[in-house]
Amino acid sequence: MASGASGAELANIVNEAALRAVRRGSKAAMQADFEESIEVVIAGYQKKNSILTEREKMIVAYHEIGHALVAAMQTNSAPVQKITIVPRTSGALGYTMQVDEGNRYLMSKEEIENKIATYTGGRAAEQLAVGSVSTGAANDIEQATRLARAMITRYGMSDEFGMVALETVTNQYLGGDSSLACSVETQTEIDRQVVELIKKQYDKAMNILKENKTKLDLLAKHLYERETITGEEFMCILNS
Amino acid sequence: MASGASGAELANIVNEAALRAVRRGSKAAMQADFEESIEVVIAGYQKKNSILTEREKMIVAYHEIGHALVAAMQTNSAPVQKITIVPRTSGALGYTMQVDEGNRYLMSKEEIENKIATYTGGRAAEQLAVGSVSTGAANDIEQATRLARAMITRYGMSDEFGMVALETVTNQYLGGDSSLACSVETQTEIDRQVVELIKKQYDKAMNILKENKTKLDLLAKHLYERETITGEEFMCILNS
Amino acid sequence: MASGASGAELANIVNEAALRAVRRGSKAAMQADFEESIEVVIAGYQKKNSILTEREKMIVAYHEIGHALVAAMQTNSAPVQKITIVPRTSGALGYTMQVDEGNRYLMSKEEIENKIATYTGGRAAEQLAVGSVSTGAANDIEQATRLARAMITRYGMSDEFGMVALETVTNQYLGGDSSLACSVETQTEIDRQVVELIKKQYDKAMNILKENKTKLDLLAKHLYERETITGEEFMCILNS
Amino acid sequence: MASGASGAELANIVNEAALRAVRRGSKAAMQADFEESIEVVIAGYQKKNSILTEREKMIVAYHEIGHALVAAMQTNSAPVQKITIVPRTSGALGYTMQVDEGNRYLMSKEEIENKIATYTGGRAAEQLAVGSVSTGAANDIEQATRLARAMITRYGMSDEFGMVALETVTNQYLGGDSSLACSVETQTEIDRQVVELIKKQYDKAMNILKENKTKLDLLAKHLYERETITGEEFMCILNS
Amino acid sequence: MASGASGAELANIVNEAALRAVRRGSKAAMQADFEESIEVVIAGYQKKNSILTEREKMIVAYHEIGHALVAAMQTNSAPVQKITIVPRTSGALGYTMQVDEGNRYLMSKEEIENKIATYTGGRAAEQLAVGSVSTGAANDIEQATRLARAMITRYGMSDEFGMVALETVTNQYLGGDSSLACSVETQTEIDRQVVELIKKQYDKAMNILKENKTKLDLLAKHLYERETITGEEFMCILNS
Amino acid sequence: MASGASGAELANIVNEAALRAVRRGSKAAMQADFEESIEVVIAGYQKKNSILTEREKMIVAYHEIGHALVAAMQTNSAPVQKITIVPRTSGALGYTMQVDEGNRYLMSKEEIENKIATYTGGRAAEQLAVGSVSTGAANDIEQATRLARAMITRYGMSDEFGMVALETVTNQYLGGDSSLACSVETQTEIDRQVVELIKKQYDKAMNILKENKTKLDLLAKHLYERETITGEEFMCILNS
Repeated sequence: MASGASGAELANIVNEAALRAVRRGSKAAMQADFEESIEVVIAGYQKKNSILTEREKMIVAYHEIGHALVAAMQTNSAPVQKITIVPRTSGALGYTMQVDEGNRYLMSKEEIENKIATYTGGRAAEQLAVGSVSTGAANDIEQATRLARAMITRYGMSDEFGMVALETVTNQYLGGDSSLACSVETQTEIDRQVVELIKKQYDKAMNILKENKTKLDLLAKHLYERETITGEEFMCILNS
Repeated sequence: MASGASGAELANIVNEAALRAVRRGSKAAMQADFEESIEVVIAGYQKKNSILTEREKMIVAYHEIGHALVAAMQTNSAPVQKITIVPRTSGALGYTMQVDEGNRYLMSKEEIENKIATYTGGRAAEQLAVGSVSTGAANDIEQATRLARAMITRYGMSDEFGMVALETVTNQYLGGDSSLACSVETQTEIDRQVVELIKKQYDKAMNILKENKTKLDLLAKHLYERETITGEEFMCILNS
Repeated sequence: MASGASGAELANIVNEAALRAVRRGSKAAMQADFEESIEVVIAGYQKKNSILTEREKMIVAYHEIGHALVAAMQTNSAPVQKITIVPRTSGALGYTMQVDEGNRYLMSKEEIENKIATYTGGRAAEQLAVGSVSTGAANDIEQATRLARAMITRYGMSDEFGMVALETVTNQYLGGDSSLACSVETQTEIDRQVVELIKKQYDKAMNILKENKTKLDLLAKHLYERETITGEEFMCILNS
Repeated sequence: MASGASGAELANIVNEAALRAVRRGSKAAMQADFEESIEVVIAGYQKKNSILTEREKMIVAYHEIGHALVAAMQTNSAPVQKITIVPRTSGALGYTMQVDEGNRYLMSKEEIENKIATYTGGRAAEQLAVGSVSTGAANDIEQATRLARAMITRYGMSDEFGMVALETVTNQYLGGDSSLACSVETQTEIDRQVVELIKKQYDKAMNILKENKTKLDLLAKHLYERETITGEEFMCILNS
Repeated sequence: MASGASGAELANIVNEAALRAVRRGSKAAMQADFEESIEVVIAGYQKKNSILTEREKMIVAYHEIGHALVAAMQTNSAPVQKITIVPRTSGALGYTMQVDEGNRYLMSKEEIENKIATYTGGRAAEQLAVGSVSTGAANDIEQATRLARAMITRYGMSDEFGMVALETVTNQYLGGDSSLACSVETQTEIDRQVVELIKKQYDKAMNILKENKTKLDLLAKHLYERETITGEEFMCILNS
Repeated sequence: MASGASGAELANIVNEAALRAVRRGSKAAMQADFEESIEVVIAGYQKKNSILTEREKMIVAYHEIGHALVAAMQTNSAPVQKITIVPRTSGALGYTMQVDEGNRYLMSKEEIENKIATYTGGRAAEQLAVGSVSTGAANDIEQATRLARAMITRYGMSDEFGMVALETVTNQYLGGDSSLACSVETQTEIDRQVVELIKKQYDKAMNILKENKTKLDLLAKHLYERETITGEEFMCILNS
């Protein structure tokens, strides 16, 4: 699951779109130039001769739909603009292009918890549909952990610690590495809370998927066949 | 909540004011040049096309009034010169320009505790008025933690440790990073005391806000509508 | 046991093959050029005057067949293209050239566990056939440990921790060094789980070898005599 | 409380005095040139427009007299040459110029304990006279802690550890940073002993001040009014 | 006790032998050139005016024979080519030139344990013959510890840990520094096992020496008188 | 207490002696040139205007005689060539020039323990004669600790640990800094043993001094008066 774009990425997106326009012999970059540029910068070029097995492709489809379904059920709106399982040169086996709505300056505790649930939705779908878990969730795990740690150590969202900063961050936003500035015992408690917090959201995600198993199967099958679907298609099937 | 200005910031403020005067075709910087300069240097330029949602704007208004109200109730005087919720390019969604009175060379234990209560006032207001907490308090959390740690580790204001220095600071004032120079067990006890100390001040701040809930609503609504209010307006409504 | 090849290694393989073709007076590298090139890059040149004792040679033969047999019994297919016990200048006393089939993008928990069992198969064979263990498993131990740690700390495959990232890795794939970013107590638990996880796979490998002791002896004797055997030969004897 | 002068400081003092003589049109630096030079180098230039509140000025007066009184009561002699509460550009709000007598090569355990008591005397006086403690003791806390740690870790003056070195110091004298070279458990015990040792000296200092409360008030009032007093004045009032 | 030679040392040995040949006016280095060269490179030049006391010389003789005797009793063959107690400029007071036979590619658990016993044999002989231990075993202690740690942390030869890697080594072979990559608790257990493992081998070495006390005395006396003996002389006396 | 001389120091001693000879107008450095050179290099130049108090001078005299007396009583021979309490520019308030006899290549456990007792003898004498301890023992404490740690961590002289290396040293000899390579729990045990080991030697030193209190007083008085005495004078008074 990919989201947002850094300043450097935005610059690359514009350059990439300009190059496409030039290649087309056009003087101006158009909507289509930008759309493909965004994907290239975020996820790399399409891998033409990718050799995913059918089983792998099915797992990836369930994984991506898992993210999208958990997100949609929590916010009651289209969580994404596009979902694709065409592998990219970046190594991504699929990804979901998100549309951030409104609240990007402030995030409430509940919104962060929902995001964590969404990150765990990919693996929950694998477990539910395939009965096995894979390495495909490694990046989701890292993102969910970062959010959970930040809730506890920087956003004062832990009942035990309250409004105490337990980490100092070099980069202001979540992407930066953070170094603990607290005691060994406090670190143990942070770990315990992170584990508990993510497990709770994973359970929530799993419940959402169980309650919508038919939709999950339908959507994953659709994505498997089409390889790329839009947010509108996603919502259309979801609400049918 | 922003307070004070470093030497480098003061130099920038003067330069900024001089530039404004030149742009106006004037040879001398005037009061108005300086006032806007101060804000630019402390908080960045105004963000013209900011896209805070109505809900976010309301949360920010409560947050800033929370700081100001807790400060005012503890010192019985105007805590600020100006409060604004016009987002700035620095990323600040709002801020409060403080006027430091008298005692800036020495701070008593009680004064530092009051400052910590004031830092927690923003989130306490969010919790009280909106029933939810947000990431908007991250910087307040860091500031409150620095003060609480300094009380315990450098100012000898902990009954358990007494006049023992447990941190060495490179930068003399609070802004500098500090590295612990004590045992693992002592660090655990420091963490415990920091958590307790800040929770106590948060409770104090929350009580102040609960007892002045009507004023809080009135002031937040006023700030929401005007986006910027002066210390005089603030005190006027508070005392009405 | 050696597997896969990095990008740099692939480039070296091509260069090596080209050099061989030139030495042969040919303008194009052929299948045979590439095959020997692969071995040279992965394992170094053949050591002409190697002085392994008969006993060492026998141990190495059992060790390599141990890997191959455990792999084959778990996947029901030829695990390797070639097994050799001709020492190489890289210091390797023998190695097994693997053919990765299908699933290389995603690995399920079960597949990683099988890989760990295969890594432990070399020593299990030594123990079973010779009744003694040697330093020859040092590299297998390192590889098995890396996989087991990754399962727990990066792939969320531990029931205790769930989808929590406990390590940050510089290099994305398993080869890179990783630094722990968790508490002292959590590290203790990780160690405990790694020990348990590998012991369980070692026991599985040992059971496979015990149940196929006759095949193990036959194959090791064959490899000892021929020094190099192909995957076809291996499967042929195994299924005889 | 300031004491002694490093070699570099001594060189600066001489230069400063020479400059003063030149400014006076004189060829030789005189006693007065040196006296002011010493203060400038140790404490910075006088702050002409200092804006201490009356209350702050009173606290500083009690603080400095606290140091001097505890010192005098322990050694039965004038502890200082001069006490001043004229703020200096160095940030010092006041200081006490000491006269080291005799014993500067060797310090006995009792002498170091007395020095620690003297360091704590400033805050003890604040607590006794004002009923509140301030950040003004931060430097005293650091100095007292360094002495107490050195007693335990480098001077073998702890009954528990005996003649064991637990710290290695880069700079030979107390001013240098020291890094612990002992076990985690020993560090815990060092912390415990440092806390106990300083508390004991603080209690001693507080008792001295309580028993001499009238003198303390008299001297603080005198210093408050005059802003600078000599050691003779101090002793004269003390013995009156 | 010295063993083996690195690649750089081998190069130095050849250079040294060539220089000797040139000095002799010969064009080719001969056996004798190489033999002395080996000693020079491994142990430094002979110290002409060495001033070992008689007692020290006796201790060194027992120490070296202790190594050789324990080695010989475990492998039933000449453990060394040459034993000498002529001090060298390298600081070595004596050394034993070993001949590695066969098994140098793989070492079994039992072979490493024997090596550790041999390392402890020097001190065991001192203790047995002189009734006192000396600093002369410092290097043996380091070597024995490296081997014992490697057994536990890299060779999977500990029952408690099994095939788990607990150290990563920069240099592939034992000479390199290794850094622990495991939890604090695991490190404690490693230390415990290392202590136990070496004590067991020390006891074994001591038993071998006690059972061969007469031979030990005879050999030590012989080495004391001759200062240098060959492996043949050693075996001859041993088997007499 | 100073002992031995490094290679660099020896070179400096020779240079210094040569300069003295030149200054004397002589072409060859003589015995007297070397003797003073040795002191200059080891301890610095004599401080002409030293201002030790009488009491300090008496403490230093007892301190130095304490070292010498404990050493002499343990080895039954003159421990020193010269004892002086003329302060040197190096900061040393006195020192004892030792003559190492025989055993410098190997040190037995008992010899190291005696050395530690000798290091503690200075303070023991202060305590016994003056009833108070001073900072003058700081260097002795460091030396005694280094020896005690080396016994336990590098020389295998601890019953608990046996022949296990717990420290790696960069510089081969005792002067070098060493970094622990063992677990946290083992470090705690090392600290405990170091404390115990040094306390035992301190008690031994104290007993020696108590049993020879009259000699101690006599020798200290003599040194106090003469300021410098030779080893012969020392032994003469000791045996009178």
